[in-house]
Amino acid sequence: MTARYEQYLAEAAERQREALFDYLRIPSISTLPEHAPDIADAAEWVRGHLERIGLREVRLLETGGNPIVYGEWLDAGPDAPTLLLYGHYDVQPAEPLELWETPPFEPTLRDGRIYARGATDNKGPLFTYLAALETVLAVDGTLPCNVKLIVEGEEELRADHLDAFLAANGELLAADACVISDSALYARDVPSIALSLRGMAALQFRLETAATDLHSGMYGGVAPNALHAMARLLATLHDEDGRVAVPGFYDAVRPLPSEEIAEWVSLPFDEEELRVEIGARRLIGGGEHAALERMWARPTLDLHGVWGGFQGEGIKTVIPREAHAKLSCRLVADMEPEPVLALLEEHLRRHCPPEAELTIEWTLPGASPMTMPRDAPLVATARAALEQGYGREALFFRSGWSVPVAALVKARLGIDSLLLGFGLPTDGAHAPNEHFDVANLERGTRTMVAFFSSATRR
Amino acid sequence: MTARYEQYLAEAAERQREALFDYLRIPSISTLPEHAPDIADAAEWVRGHLERIGLREVRLLETGGNPIVYGEWLDAGPDAPTLLLYGHYDVQPAEPLELWETPPFEPTLRDGRIYARGATDNKGPLFTYLAALETVLAVDGTLPCNVKLIVEGEEELRADHLDAFLAANGELLAADACVISDSALYARDVPSIALSLRGMAALQFRLETAATDLHSGMYGGVAPNALHAMARLLATLHDEDGRVAVPGFYDAVRPLPSEEIAEWVSLPFDEEELRVEIGARRLIGGGEHAALERMWARPTLDLHGVWGGFQGEGIKTVIPREAHAKLSCRLVADMEPEPVLALLEEHLRRHCPPEAELTIEWTLPGASPMTMPRDAPLVATARAALEQGYGREALFFRSGWSVPVAALVKARLGIDSLLLGFGLPTDGAHAPNEHFDVANLERGTRTMVAFFSSATRR
Repeated sequence: MTARYEQYLAEAAERQREALFDYLRIPSISTLPEHAPDIADAAEWVRGHLERIGLREVRLLETGGNPIVYGEWLDAGPDAPTLLLYGHYDVQPAEPLELWETPPFEPTLRDGRIYARGATDNKGPLFTYLAALETVLAVDGTLPCNVKLIVEGEEELRADHLDAFLAANGELLAADACVISDSALYARDVPSIALSLRGMAALQFRLETAATDLHSGMYGGVAPNALHAMARLLATLHDEDGRVAVPGFYDAVRPLPSEEIAEWVSLPFDEEELRVEIGARRLIGGGEHAALERMWARPTLDLHGVWGGFQGEGIKTVIPREAHAKLSCRLVADMEPEPVLALLEEHLRRHCPPEAELTIEWTLPGASPMTMPRDAPLVATARAALEQGYGREALFFRSGWSVPVAALVKARLGIDSLLLGFGLPTDGAHAPNEHFDVANLERGTRTMVAFFSSATRR
Repeated sequence: MTARYEQYLAEAAERQREALFDYLRIPSISTLPEHAPDIADAAEWVRGHLERIGLREVRLLETGGNPIVYGEWLDAGPDAPTLLLYGHYDVQPAEPLELWETPPFEPTLRDGRIYARGATDNKGPLFTYLAALETVLAVDGTLPCNVKLIVEGEEELRADHLDAFLAANGELLAADACVISDSALYARDVPSIALSLRGMAALQFRLETAATDLHSGMYGGVAPNALHAMARLLATLHDEDGRVAVPGFYDAVRPLPSEEIAEWVSLPFDEEELRVEIGARRLIGGGEHAALERMWARPTLDLHGVWGGFQGEGIKTVIPREAHAKLSCRLVADMEPEPVLALLEEHLRRHCPPEAELTIEWTLPGASPMTMPRDAPLVATARAALEQGYGREALFFRSGWSVPVAALVKARLGIDSLLLGFGLPTDGAHAPNEHFDVANLERGTRTMVAFFSSATRR
C-alpha cells in the first residue's frame, strides 16, 4: 500500500470512526415495525455518506419494502472488472437489553472493540468498504475497477424483496462478481477467504394416522399412532453414525482437492476442542471425512423440529392423530435444492409406514451452494490485499453456512461471490454485546484499499 | 323384581327425576377454583339426599381437598357381604359452551335423553344407585347386604386425596368388594359387565446431545442432533406391525379362556367399522390376536407426546440439543407398573444412541390392572340383576381403560371392583351435549334394585 493511502487513512481515522459511530447510533431494526423511521434514517445516512465519499448516481431504489441504497463508480471502463459490492444497513433487535454492558445504540470503545448492535453485522464490515473507497478516490481521483454498491435494509427480515429487486435490475447491477462484506474471517488474526458456501433446501411434512386424537385406554392396541409412524420414518434418514441414508444423497458431491485439505492444517482447529465447546458426547458423521470437511464440503440433513401429541405438564393418554417434522439440508458442489427435495420426498414416501398419510406441508428451495474457484484472478487479488492489510499470509477456508445474497446473485445475475468480510465468528452477531474489533476495522479498511486499488483482473 | 318395588318406582319416578335434575343443576366443576361454592353445594346435596333415602352415619369426610360424602347401611350383619359403593359428584368444565344445544347446567329432556354436564359422568349413573337404595329400603325396611357409599368430589381433578383417604380409612371402608357406578355398558341395549380393567404406567424422558442448540450451517455434519437420536430410540419400541418390541414386555400376559373369546361374537363389533370410525388407514397390532383382545386384554405402549427443536412458522435452522417424549403402557393380567417401568427404562438405556444422554424425567406407576373372576358370586348376582333390569341376556366384556378408583381400592383396601354402570361410550362424557338415556336411568335403577335386594353372596 502506498504511503499516500497510509497518510490519508491516518489523517481520516478519527473522522471516519466518528462517522461509523453516527451510523451505529441509528437503531435500524428491520424486524420491528416501530423502527420504520430509523430504517429510513439509516438508508438516508448511507445515501449521504456515499455522496460524501464521491460515489456517483447515489440514490434510494424502491424494492416494495425498505429501500436499497445504490452508488457506483464506473470510470474504469469496459476492460476493467465490475464489482457488485454488498452490505446491509438493517440490524437485529437488541433484546434482551439487560444483558448489554453498554446500551446497544450508544457505540462504545472498550478493550479494543466497538460495542454496538450492528457493529459486526454488518455496519462495521461495510464501513471498511466505504472508508477504502473514500481513500482510493480521494488519493487517486478514480478506481482501477468499476464498482456498483448496494446496501439493503431487509437482510435480517428475510423478505423476498431483494430477490425481486435483483431479478428486475439485471442491467443496472450487471457485474463480473459480487463482493460481500457480510461475512467473517476464519478466526482472529487469521486473514482468510471462504471459498465456498453451502446451499440449503428445507421442508416440513406431517403424518396423519386417524381422524381425531384417540384415548389410549379405549383404542390402545389397535389405533395407529402418528408418533410411532414418525419415529419409524425419521429413523430411516440417517445411519447410526449420522450419515444421511437417503439413496443418491451424496451423488453430486465432488471430492475436494487433496492439496486444499492439506492446507487446512494451517488453520487453528482441534476436533476435540470443538466437541468440548459444543458440549457433545461425540461428533457424528465421522469416518472417511474429517470434521472440517464435513462442516464445509459435505451435505447434511438435520431435523430442526419434531412435534406431535401432548406437551403439557404430566400425562394425557392420547393416541395422537398427527405428527410434524421440519428439516433442512445443507448442499455442496453440484447439488441443487429442487432435485434434493425431490429425492427426499421420494424417500419419505417410500418409507412412510402404511398406517400413515404423508403430506409435504411446504418446501423451501432456499439456496444453491456456491464455490469461488481458488485460481480466479479476483481471489488472488483478494488474497494479496488481505496479506497487505494483515501483514501475514492469508489462508483459504470454506464455510458451512448459506449466505442468501450469494445464492440470489448467482441465480438472478449469474455471478459468483467473493466473501470478503472482517467480522469474527465470536463477535456476537445477533447476541447481546455485539462488537467489532478496532483491529479488524483498521486492517479491513487497509485490505479493502489494497483490494480496490489493485482489482484490475476479472 | 317384586311388584312392590315396581309400584314404588312407578310412584316415585317423577319425584326422583326432579331430584336428579336438581343435582344436575349444580355446576360442581372441580377443576375451576371459582366453582368451589358449587362443589360445596353438590356435596351438601348428596349428603342431604343420602339422609332422605335413609342411609345412616351420613356425613362429609375431610380429605384435604373436596370432601367425600359417606353413608352406610350395615344391618345385614357379618354373614352378609359388605359392598363399598363408589361415585363422584364433581364434573368436567362445560366449555366450549357454544356447542351445547341447551345450557349444560339446565338439564333438559329431549329425545329420550337427559342433556346436562355430568348426566352420564357420573351424576346419572350414581343416581341409579341412590334411587335403588331408596326403593329397597322403603319397601323392605332394610337391605340383605351391607353397603358403605362414598361419593368423592375430585374424580375429574386427579388429585391424590382419594388415595390418602383410602389409606387412612381402611377400617371404616372395609368391604368385600367395590361396586363402581362410574363405568359404562358395552353399548346401548347391551346389558353387560366389564370383567377387567387395564392398568397403567407412564414416564417422560429427555435426550440431550449438546450444551446448546447449534446452527446447522456452522455445525451441520459434526454436531449430534437430539431429534435424530430420539427418532432412532423411539423406533426400537415397536415392530412394524405395532407390537411392542421391548424384550419381556408380554411375559406376564396370560391367554384368555377361549370360551370367553368365543362369547364375544355376541357383542356388536366389527373391526372394519372401527377402522372407519376412527379414520385409520389400517389397524395396528394385528396377527395372532383379534382387535377386541388387543384393546382389552393385551398390553400396549403408546407415545403421547414427542417434541424438540423449533415448532413455529417457517424454518429455523437449529440443531436441537434436546428432545422429549411422553409415553404410557396399558397393563393386563399379572403385569405390575413398577417392573414394567424398569423394563422400559432398561430398554431405553440399552438403545439410547451413544451421542445422547438419557434422563428419565418422571415415572407414574398409575394403576395395576384389575380382573374380576367371572365365576365370582357377586358377578353372578350382577348378571342376573342386569337381566332383570334390561329384560335380556347380559354379556361379559372387558375394558381397555384404567379406572383409577379400582386400582386404588385394590391397592389400599385389597378388594376387587365390580363395574356396574349404565352410561354408554357414546354419551359424550367430557364433551358438549353430554347426556344420559332415560332408558338407562330407568333400567339401571331396576337393575340396582334387583342387585341390592339379592346381593347375599360374597
